Amino acid sequence: MNAAFARGTVWLVGAGPGDPDLLTRKAERLIAAADIVFHDALVGPGVLALVPPSVELVSVGKRSGRHSKDQRTIDALIVEAALAGKRVVRLKGGDPSIFGRSNEELEACHAAGVPVHICPGITAASAAAADLGLSLTLRGTARRLTFVTAHTKRGEVPEIDWAALADPQATLAVYMGKAAAPYVSAGLIAAGQAADTPVALVENASLPKGSQFRTRLDLLPIAAKTALSDGPALILIGAAVAEPNASSSLETRERLSREDISSFAAH
Amino acid sequence: MNAAFARGTVWLVGAGPGDPDLLTRKAERLIAAADIVFHDALVGPGVLALVPPSVELVSVGKRSGRHSKDQRTIDALIVEAALAGKRVVRLKGGDPSIFGRSNEELEACHAAGVPVHICPGITAASAAAADLGLSLTLRGTARRLTFVTAHTKRGEVPEIDWAALADPQATLAVYMGKAAAPYVSAGLIAAGQAADTPVALVENASLPKGSQFRTRLDLLPIAAKTALSDGPALILIGAAVAEPNASSSLETRERLSREDISSFAAH
Repeated sequence: MNAAFARGTVWLVGAGPGDPDLLTRKAERLIAAADIVFHDALVGPGVLALVPPSVELVSVGKRSGRHSKDQRTIDALIVEAALAGKRVVRLKGGDPSIFGRSNEELEACHAAGVPVHICPGITAASAAAADLGLSLTLRGTARRLTFVTAHTKRGEVPEIDWAALADPQATLAVYMGKAAAPYVSAGLIAAGQAADTPVALVENASLPKGSQFRTRLDLLPIAAKTALSDGPALILIGAAVAEPNASSSLETRERLSREDISSFAAH
Repeated sequence: MNAAFARGTVWLVGAGPGDPDLLTRKAERLIAAADIVFHDALVGPGVLALVPPSVELVSVGKRSGRHSKDQRTIDALIVEAALAGKRVVRLKGGDPSIFGRSNEELEACHAAGVPVHICPGITAASAAAADLGLSLTLRGTARRLTFVTAHTKRGEVPEIDWAALADPQATLAVYMGKAAAPYVSAGLIAAGQAADTPVALVENASLPKGSQFRTRLDLLPIAAKTALSDGPALILIGAAVAEPNASSSLETRERLSREDISSFAAH
């Protein structure tokens, strides 16, 4: 396999949402075949435990507030390692192609003539839906699924076209939206979205410490403030995330304890 | 692990885009621990080869033109197997929560009091982006990513709100959009999207037989007709899928041969 992971090449690898069991088989093999792995703070300890001790492990980047200069430093580190003949893995939380800021690293590799590939990962919205036990799309009623990021610097209002997102037939997943929750709620309601549109908040999707909360669009700001801690959080909005109405469903959900899922993940 | 995958429970498992190496580690274990696996026609031979011979393997559903009655039959088969005490895996192409029609199966399980869980999978858009070597989101310029399905019965026009989708700052992924390509192109252009908006067509994403084509929005209908064969296809639209402008990038891309990726996948 080392023959296929050529020396002097870079793989941007999706680490998925956090549960090491949600890494792909390909990602697991790439990590094991690498000479050096650069990882985000968002890549959790469970995934990092899969990196063999013989592989050099380098933490890059902060959880938030990372500046362009930091990104350029990461670009330079990756390119430098590849030009030195190393097999380089850049391990990124979720999927490298969805809010992973991969473009900068791809361009840096291209500019330096370094071959670069992408190994996809499970994105947070998929993991959050699995945790909630629901589909993000519903035939006939929720046929559009949109991902936006509402990450903002302290005090800044995110520039988002709420009118295009306010649609009862759509599901909206807001990545990194905890701080922007008041803008998300006010923006969508001002654009015509119903105040009682179902909302689900998922923090630490896929992890044993993960938690899920249900609310409605007008109550989202207070729910985000009171229910969420400091883990990565996703806000899901739309009819698809409504609590199932049958009491039998609630009963079923209670039986699907997190312990069951965690013990499976830990096999 | 069989203790965690309890008898009489159902797991909806994402099989990913086709490459068996893009299955998650968790999906691989669930398949191996199941008593029976119900799979779509979209789940390819490479993934099915991971199902141990001791596990009962049942093909359900056609590639297209499946009617509600067929879905109800699948629901009934899954519930029946679980009520008979089997460990049931329902293996679905891509991610069960994105255009996977999981809702019907979740509701059928809830109604019957059968515990049901979801194991997420790599969705086609993530795999297509990886094949193309690009990010679906670009900081500052492509901050919104929307998935729609444009699957239509022969002769029917898909009901899609093009005005909400025509946005130069967004990336649009059209699932099952081959037949609807003329409507996608005409609908977006009529709603104000630029005729020269970059488009990428990806067929059989992640597979050795996969192919990628670049075109522009106004030429999408003819490109879809001439370039695509009968494999599952995804249409990606937006600035994020533009061909990188540097000639060094093209050169780099040529070096990243599919053989390299395939031989890695086959390890």
